[in-house]
Amino acid sequence: MEAPEISDSSPVAIKPVEAAIESHTEFKPESLDLLHHLSIESRIRQKSLLKVSSSYLARDPELLSLAAGLPSPSLFPIEKITVTVPTAKHESARNGLWKNNGLLHAHRDLLKEKDSNLKGQSEYDLSRALQYEQGTGAKQLLKFLKKHTEVVHNPQYRDWDCIMSGGNTHAMETVFRMLINPGDYIILEEFAFPETAEALKPLRAKMIGIEMDKEGMKSDSVRQLLESWDETARGGKRPGVLYVVPTGQNPTGATMSVQRRKEIYDICVTYDLIIIEDDPYYFLQMSDYVPGADPTVVNVPKTNDEFLSTLIPSVLSIDTQGRVLRLDSFSKIAAPGLRCGWITGSDRFIERVLRHNEVGLQFPSGVSMAVLHGMLGEAWGQDGFLDWLVNLRAEYTSRRNALLVAMDKYLPREVCEWVVPSAGMFVWLQVDHTKHPRKDNGIEAVEMELFEAGIDNKVLILPGAWFKVNPEARDVFFRATFASVSAEEMALAVERFGEVLRKSFGFV
Amino acid sequence: MEAPEISDSSPVAIKPVEAAIESHTEFKPESLDLLHHLSIESRIRQKSLLKVSSSYLARDPELLSLAAGLPSPSLFPIEKITVTVPTAKHESARNGLWKNNGLLHAHRDLLKEKDSNLKGQSEYDLSRALQYEQGTGAKQLLKFLKKHTEVVHNPQYRDWDCIMSGGNTHAMETVFRMLINPGDYIILEEFAFPETAEALKPLRAKMIGIEMDKEGMKSDSVRQLLESWDETARGGKRPGVLYVVPTGQNPTGATMSVQRRKEIYDICVTYDLIIIEDDPYYFLQMSDYVPGADPTVVNVPKTNDEFLSTLIPSVLSIDTQGRVLRLDSFSKIAAPGLRCGWITGSDRFIERVLRHNEVGLQFPSGVSMAVLHGMLGEAWGQDGFLDWLVNLRAEYTSRRNALLVAMDKYLPREVCEWVVPSAGMFVWLQVDHTKHPRKDNGIEAVEMELFEAGIDNKVLILPGAWFKVNPEARDVFFRATFASVSAEEMALAVERFGEVLRKSFGFV
Repeated sequence: MEAPEISDSSPVAIKPVEAAIESHTEFKPESLDLLHHLSIESRIRQKSLLKVSSSYLARDPELLSLAAGLPSPSLFPIEKITVTVPTAKHESARNGLWKNNGLLHAHRDLLKEKDSNLKGQSEYDLSRALQYEQGTGAKQLLKFLKKHTEVVHNPQYRDWDCIMSGGNTHAMETVFRMLINPGDYIILEEFAFPETAEALKPLRAKMIGIEMDKEGMKSDSVRQLLESWDETARGGKRPGVLYVVPTGQNPTGATMSVQRRKEIYDICVTYDLIIIEDDPYYFLQMSDYVPGADPTVVNVPKTNDEFLSTLIPSVLSIDTQGRVLRLDSFSKIAAPGLRCGWITGSDRFIERVLRHNEVGLQFPSGVSMAVLHGMLGEAWGQDGFLDWLVNLRAEYTSRRNALLVAMDKYLPREVCEWVVPSAGMFVWLQVDHTKHPRKDNGIEAVEMELFEAGIDNKVLILPGAWFKVNPEARDVFFRATFASVSAEEMALAVERFGEVLRKSFGFV
Repeated sequence: MEAPEISDSSPVAIKPVEAAIESHTEFKPESLDLLHHLSIESRIRQKSLLKVSSSYLARDPELLSLAAGLPSPSLFPIEKITVTVPTAKHESARNGLWKNNGLLHAHRDLLKEKDSNLKGQSEYDLSRALQYEQGTGAKQLLKFLKKHTEVVHNPQYRDWDCIMSGGNTHAMETVFRMLINPGDYIILEEFAFPETAEALKPLRAKMIGIEMDKEGMKSDSVRQLLESWDETARGGKRPGVLYVVPTGQNPTGATMSVQRRKEIYDICVTYDLIIIEDDPYYFLQMSDYVPGADPTVVNVPKTNDEFLSTLIPSVLSIDTQGRVLRLDSFSKIAAPGLRCGWITGSDRFIERVLRHNEVGLQFPSGVSMAVLHGMLGEAWGQDGFLDWLVNLRAEYTSRRNALLVAMDKYLPREVCEWVVPSAGMFVWLQVDHTKHPRKDNGIEAVEMELFEAGIDNKVLILPGAWFKVNPEARDVFFRATFASVSAEEMALAVERFGEVLRKSFGFV
């Protein structure tokens, strides 16, 4: 591939040979050059001059350096970090029996780690983890994540790459800034995580929320919007970016079918849109819910291959052109406090993210990366990571089931409707405002009345209005989560909200 | 203080009562409202709706929540983290004898930590550190840093506050975005860390580099620039932001005197500029260099009060109006890999940073914050932290001395000039191009010739051109660091560069 020309003064993007070798994808096509989508800000970014100095050192190991202003690791006040993580053989993972006996050690002064009871040595010592790092993130951890991405998503073009992020909120803001100029339109789902809109408003992006059904964003609506786009009427050019949370969407819990994903992707090819696939709930895909069955009994895949085959293909996995920027996060599959995730896409776009990281985030915390590398790369390996995800899937399935049992039992079906979520952390409750005695006050007034009556009855459940992208309301909605409270508390909370609904609708 | 009005549609900034109480500053004046300096982007930022939900929970502890989509800490795969940090009594710190025997433990499931051999309990357990956190950063650590800031800088107005950042590169980008619209001018030092310019270019800021002397940015030049500002000729309004690294500046090593700081501050009051005080090297202030003395013998302050009295007042400490945004970092005083720092300024500006954090960084890594809180808040305390900084200061002084001894010994004084740095990690070498046989090729050509001859002679030292903010070069410069290599390597490297200079200038 030729180095992309962004503008006359732009830096030349250097393509790592490594990417092609690593993913064994020599028979795959190259991505399209889609850099015309870059924002003005992103086009201007240049490679840091200071990065050049390390290339001299790499070329000549005899060179004595008075160059890099790196503090000496001997002055880092952290000698050793020991982390205890659960480990398990495959069989016990499938029974949910993870023992917490894995000890990982990272020492500051030892390049080879001898004290660990896991593998006997660490590739990524503390003197490295506590030092300045490349804007890509630590290469050992990044290598693990690229392999994982290849195993799970197997991108269909040759020149894909990954870069580490500070979690999906950070990644989202980064790719928005990379692709959106003030005044540009962007396509979203009609309901979105509020921070998405709160990140877009300061960038002065104009948001269009597409109507959703149980499979999420409706492809027909997207096509119609783009087909009939009128620049003059809209006061702006056709959107160049579509942002979607395809799996266990927040707040609706909707998961797009493969068919829907392909339709959306094809439309984006036709109208030349970049797709931001924000997918933190991908591994919280759950087995079926059987009403009446014991909610704690969860069907678990027998092998990791079987597990992988149950996962719905990501939009990244059907992308042949390098049109998808996929955002993965450790927040839901490990811990949010790590502030660590990764972005996958064509290496042209990943290079632009790298240029931004270098003058912003720099890289995720080295302590977070050391903990993750110890856990993933040393204690678990690729298969062990999948085992952990199977374990997690079972936990979330059981929690979801408990919430659904309570909803079946306590909510008035006459006015309530919900789709059983097949992924994520949320159930989206639709309440038929047309049957409400005070419907003439308007949808939002009915929603707020129910929300406040909930508070009075000691239950907090979030109103649809908080997630609305478009100004108009379609019906009354509430978001309930099954992520963090016990089955008993969920049941009690749902019972209380059922009382609120019955009373407010005049059923009691 | 009244809540500031930014614009009709802007959110109302809520002032924490805590700030005023914490800093015991009831007799200090309030800051000026300087929010007219906000960029368009920053003015638009709104408070996250989701943050509202936690206020309901805070008001009514009996409320059952189906609201917050937080993963359950029981599903975090990290059970325990143990960190070994050096601890010392004050006396041994002053002798540089820090023993590495402090063990800090953080458990996931224990709110009260009983296993630590330090204080017997931890306020900040892992289930908190691994969870989502407020955009301010962990409150326990932030409290420590505010106290530290009060002890060291004692801000002269009442309503100051701190917020955590992802280190000073992240903090710098954040405050640039908060204060600069495309096309705005900004004042910098004539030489700057390259990433400063690389962060500003994509924001389309117009940079003006002010001539420096041994005390850094010349105040007369700043005054003259602002006094004679011609909007038409310049194609833009007078700069509203002055960015400065006042202590151990990178690359020049210059430290501004108190007098210079006051002059710059007064000019910024007169012409209404916000000062960004980027000060990562503040605690790397060193004792005097005595040529001919043993470089490893370093004068160490006897008490922490004496130590504090040796530190030059920060620009923050002389600010009475809330005009300074001070950026502090753990990168040089603990470890860069922690990616953690803090911003201090008027709470009006800090609130705007918080709104940005909420949709970007979110917060620094919880693992980094847990390590720092364990070390600072539990193992060391305020005094122990100062002890550590005294220890660090002695280390850097000795390293600086070793470099200066080598420079005295090996560099040709006929063409070389340098100022002994009183802080930081760098010595800035000025080479008189007018005496060079190929001076007619231009300053930059002479500089590059010397740089490349250095590489050929196995020494890497960075050319002034890499740090230049303005297009024109004033003379030939090189930046040498004493941060990361041994005294022996530094001596050999300087000897090699001395050979290069003598040969190139035709002295041998």
